[in-house]
Amino acid sequence: MSLRLHAPVVLPCDPSCSVLRDAVVDVVDGRITYVGGAADAPAFDGEVRRLSGLLLPGLVNTHAHSPMTVLRGLGSDLPLLRWLKEQMWPNEAKMTAADVGVGMLLGAVEMLRHGVTTSAEMYFHGPELVSSILAVGSRVVFGSAILDLPGLSWQSMTSEITTWIDADGLRFGPGERIELAFGPHSAYTLTPSMLTAVAEEARARDALLMVHVAESPEEDIAQRAEYGSVPALLKASDVLGGRVLSAHSVHLSDDDIALYASYGVGVAHCPGSNAKLASGIARVPALLQAGVNVGLGTDGPASNDDLDLFEEARLAAMFARVSTMDATALGAAQALLMATRGGAAALGRDDIGALEAGRWADVVHIDVDDPAFATGLDAPDEQLLANLVWASGARRVTDVWVAGDHVVAGGESTRVDRREAQAGVTAVAQRLRTT
Amino acid sequence: MSLRLHAPVVLPCDPSCSVLRDAVVDVVDGRITYVGGAADAPAFDGEVRRLSGLLLPGLVNTHAHSPMTVLRGLGSDLPLLRWLKEQMWPNEAKMTAADVGVGMLLGAVEMLRHGVTTSAEMYFHGPELVSSILAVGSRVVFGSAILDLPGLSWQSMTSEITTWIDADGLRFGPGERIELAFGPHSAYTLTPSMLTAVAEEARARDALLMVHVAESPEEDIAQRAEYGSVPALLKASDVLGGRVLSAHSVHLSDDDIALYASYGVGVAHCPGSNAKLASGIARVPALLQAGVNVGLGTDGPASNDDLDLFEEARLAAMFARVSTMDATALGAAQALLMATRGGAAALGRDDIGALEAGRWADVVHIDVDDPAFATGLDAPDEQLLANLVWASGARRVTDVWVAGDHVVAGGESTRVDRREAQAGVTAVAQRLRTT
Ligand SMILES: [Zn+2]
Ligand SMILES: [Zn+2]
Repeated sequence: MSLRLHAPVVLPCDPSCSVLRDAVVDVVDGRITYVGGAADAPAFDGEVRRLSGLLLPGLVNTHAHSPMTVLRGLGSDLPLLRWLKEQMWPNEAKMTAADVGVGMLLGAVEMLRHGVTTSAEMYFHGPELVSSILAVGSRVVFGSAILDLPGLSWQSMTSEITTWIDADGLRFGPGERIELAFGPHSAYTLTPSMLTAVAEEARARDALLMVHVAESPEEDIAQRAEYGSVPALLKASDVLGGRVLSAHSVHLSDDDIALYASYGVGVAHCPGSNAKLASGIARVPALLQAGVNVGLGTDGPASNDDLDLFEEARLAAMFARVSTMDATALGAAQALLMATRGGAAALGRDDIGALEAGRWADVVHIDVDDPAFATGLDAPDEQLLANLVWASGARRVTDVWVAGDHVVAGGESTRVDRREAQAGVTAVAQRLRTT
Repeated sequence: MSLRLHAPVVLPCDPSCSVLRDAVVDVVDGRITYVGGAADAPAFDGEVRRLSGLLLPGLVNTHAHSPMTVLRGLGSDLPLLRWLKEQMWPNEAKMTAADVGVGMLLGAVEMLRHGVTTSAEMYFHGPELVSSILAVGSRVVFGSAILDLPGLSWQSMTSEITTWIDADGLRFGPGERIELAFGPHSAYTLTPSMLTAVAEEARARDALLMVHVAESPEEDIAQRAEYGSVPALLKASDVLGGRVLSAHSVHLSDDDIALYASYGVGVAHCPGSNAKLASGIARVPALLQAGVNVGLGTDGPASNDDLDLFEEARLAAMFARVSTMDATALGAAQALLMATRGGAAALGRDDIGALEAGRWADVVHIDVDDPAFATGLDAPDEQLLANLVWASGARRVTDVWVAGDHVVAGGESTRVDRREAQAGVTAVAQRLRTT
């Protein structure tokens, strides 16, 4: 299968965030073979699609619990602990494996319509979650949740994912749609020795380990008292060293940041969730300065509530600026790179997150028939990037390809009926309300 | 003209932010005559429209410079003063009266599509600005900008607006579409005696006075050194006492807040602009606690950059929560009220901003065919409000009425061709770039 996408503007999301004019993206068998000016492009034998707007790589959501679409908006004005204990946990306890599939199906459709082609999901019921991703045609890094709580066995949760990985290999589906990973929840729901054991299993398989770190000031008081910080606990427990993704990571010291940089730990920055739940503002400029790979995450739709990573990019720039009182602390280009290339790097993936020869052809088309782009496509590069990041966001995503497959056309999924996906969630939400 | 709007959910934006189910809004000659349950509604003789989603009052944008759509995205990564001096002022100096009309036309179309039916505009070239509002069919409070800078005469700028008000009266157009007001820019661009003189003219006409206050920490150092604070300067200069709208108002002391409460000063809170320009986070929970009328503002589209007041509502709640580290500091209902009723009150208007008998029928319909509302219209009130404020925002605004006129249908202006409005801005932006 050969496809050439030809557009007036292509944003490959290379490290310098180039803006290419009158450019093409060539795709063969799901992989990108060429990105560059149309005038310099090699001869091409295949379907050519002319597009009117901006092409960019599919966005990478580095931290989500998307099946929680079935709980969206519940208890949204409660403080964090009451929200968890009164609304989230009792409802999640009632959710079946099928409910998780239903919630993930809508979440994946919603993300694709917002240009998110990959999400890192820490949740339960992997088989049902993964089959929804395959149905929609997007991509997931599934971090199977591991907790030590009454009624839950962290050992069996761990062996469940090791068994699955060992049986299927890390990635499957056409175009490596699925990566299986370990999701030890946090240092306050697992002891250090449990974290050590889980990390060993992950490292033995070169699998990603995703863990919540330093989200709110209240959550890990005992752990911080003993180890100084959660990153220090992770180091002492031999968790660092493999592929590690640290979600939230709001309350980090300079030492914690240096530790993350030296171990290549990725960070999933979730500005919307951190603000809504009053967790704080992560030190993103300091993390970037130290060379840490920072991606963006929506967190679950019950705590954010919109699975829109473009909004997270804008929020990341706003929070970085207002928390440092420096309007140059984070620009539009950096915010866009965090949502794409940076997110892929935080997940330890170099096959997605940019339009580059060799990577998967996960591509988003943003139509420019919108007031956001009225100053013109011939505006300077910086202004076009600002129009995209600060003004248009996701609302004009018209087409999305994943591994070259056209999974969104005209703003709607080509694979799944969105209204049926919504109706599925409605039925689950109504059952949860009344049982 | 008689119109009944009948929807499964009506949010009248009364002080307790009620959620009415299966309810109607009756409109006669542009004014609301009844809002309440369909079962209890009076007999009605006129057109009845059945709608599938949520009805709420048109949003009120309390601080904007919307003609700056022609400058959107320019210099967005520069620090505030360089942004002003290198990009905004040189370009604004090149803008003609016709350019202002072109910029306002697109801004008004864009706002209406986002459910904003009224904006308070501090800008120049009132006649052209106002005629764009009349063309689009929305509503404006036009605060004619008054500055004392080389080449500008504050006296002639003041007499221009007094002459206009005295000739036409405060409001004109069908349905009181236009209110004329005074826009003394700030305490650092006008001396205290100039402010006193402008305020006298405003008070003599019961006109609104809108002024920038305490936006960034750098802007009014000399004034704060002499008077303690800008609100104290305004009091000492006899500016308070009439209808005063204080824009931004980020850096206020407890005394400033008490002063505003005692004089009934309204505040236009602009969280997006304040974050992007690294101005700071206004003390909204403290202002609301003190009884100050707080509305929301987008500020100009060159500094924000999207004229989307739903986003400002979400940001207001996020910033209030993260700045106080209290997830209950500002809820969805309060955020929605600031965008509607609170904004009207901040402008000193009791004829807009709520669905109440006697007020103008400025009404927005939000379709619920969206993942944001998939948990169902039968969800509890609090959850529905969260779905609207935290998840759907403006993206499903399908219909808007202003004084009962159907000015947006199917998400597009019924009065103005949006693409032509965009093309007008493109032409101006290109001319500004090349001359
Ligand atoms: Zn999480
Ligand atoms: Zn302003």
